[in-house]
Amino acid sequence: MKPFEKLVASLRRLPGIGPKQAERLALHLLRASSTEVEQFQLSLREVRERVRPCPVCLDYTDQPTCRICADPAREERVVCVVEDPTDVAAVERTRRFRGRYHVLHGVLSPLDGVGPENLRIRELLARVGAWGEAGGEVILATNHDTEGDATALYLGRLLQPLGVRVTRIAIGVPLGGDLAYIDEQTLSEALAGRRSV
Amino acid sequence: MKPFEKLVASLRRLPGIGPKQAERLALHLLRASSTEVEQFQLSLREVRERVRPCPVCLDYTDQPTCRICADPAREERVVCVVEDPTDVAAVERTRRFRGRYHVLHGVLSPLDGVGPENLRIRELLARVGAWGEAGGEVILATNHDTEGDATALYLGRLLQPLGVRVTRIAIGVPLGGDLAYIDEQTLSEALAGRRSV
Repeated sequence: MKPFEKLVASLRRLPGIGPKQAERLALHLLRASSTEVEQFQLSLREVRERVRPCPVCLDYTDQPTCRICADPAREERVVCVVEDPTDVAAVERTRRFRGRYHVLHGVLSPLDGVGPENLRIRELLARVGAWGEAGGEVILATNHDTEGDATALYLGRLLQPLGVRVTRIAIGVPLGGDLAYIDEQTLSEALAGRRSV
Repeated sequence: MKPFEKLVASLRRLPGIGPKQAERLALHLLRASSTEVEQFQLSLREVRERVRPCPVCLDYTDQPTCRICADPAREERVVCVVEDPTDVAAVERTRRFRGRYHVLHGVLSPLDGVGPENLRIRELLARVGAWGEAGGEVILATNHDTEGDATALYLGRLLQPLGVRVTRIAIGVPLGGDLAYIDEQTLSEALAGRRSV
């Protein structure tokens, strides 16, 4: 294969990049300034060399323990379980959560061959199990789709016997959501989850 | 900035990559196998080191002259003028064109500060000018949008005095195009360009 086609092929392996966009990206990378390309290569190398899963929550970090797990101000026994590191960033942006995280690094997906053994579930059970009598809360914040719901259900069953409070993030009409255009499943869950005002 | 955020920032500079996709790509590049990442880095390095514009048509190549310009079977005095190297690939896929190419590396776009001096127009005029009495044909195959049309018009005016045939690719209803859904501009041009059957 020629160098340009090889680069296009490499770019096509990235998630969400189709053939046309791979060509466009390759063309950009060929034409870009040396500074831009060197910065990109440097940041890729740095991420690969320095970023590792935090031994506590398994979020990625370039420190021995991640910023959140190392922060004594964060509640230790309120753990928000998410699928991916990008979900940690999303919850953090709300500035409403003062607990900690546990990153599963995926979601149960039998069709893609992802079973419980492929997720960081053992680490979650060990962590929560160590709370003992003190108790605590595990918030299941996997996505609200078939796989995320199934994963939450599965984790709920494993966690309940440990004597902790297990919750699921609320499902309902999103901000700006027009009732006329929202899918009926969401709307019926929003009704079922109604609260006194 | 932390290594992960730096990589996200680098990825965001790529065309068509938004903040969410940059995060997703960075996560993928962090998790990918060493083989995949090394292959990507190698192909990027190779493209940057070995690929240069062909001295004749200005398409990118890793050879002293590009494959098409070096092919004696391609008609030398039928030149298809395109905006970008990816357009050369698109025309080649049709397998209907046996001439050669000239890559402008852009399109006239006053709003983006791209004037004639930023495109490879001088090289086109020198190339076509050298045909002399023998004549030939220049096919203007810039995109059919405001900027592509303006560039074709501009080039037409420069080329006509050189005594060559100057043509523009046909505009019309695309294959599978439903007349009821096609924009009226295209449809009126398709009508104006009707041919006997």
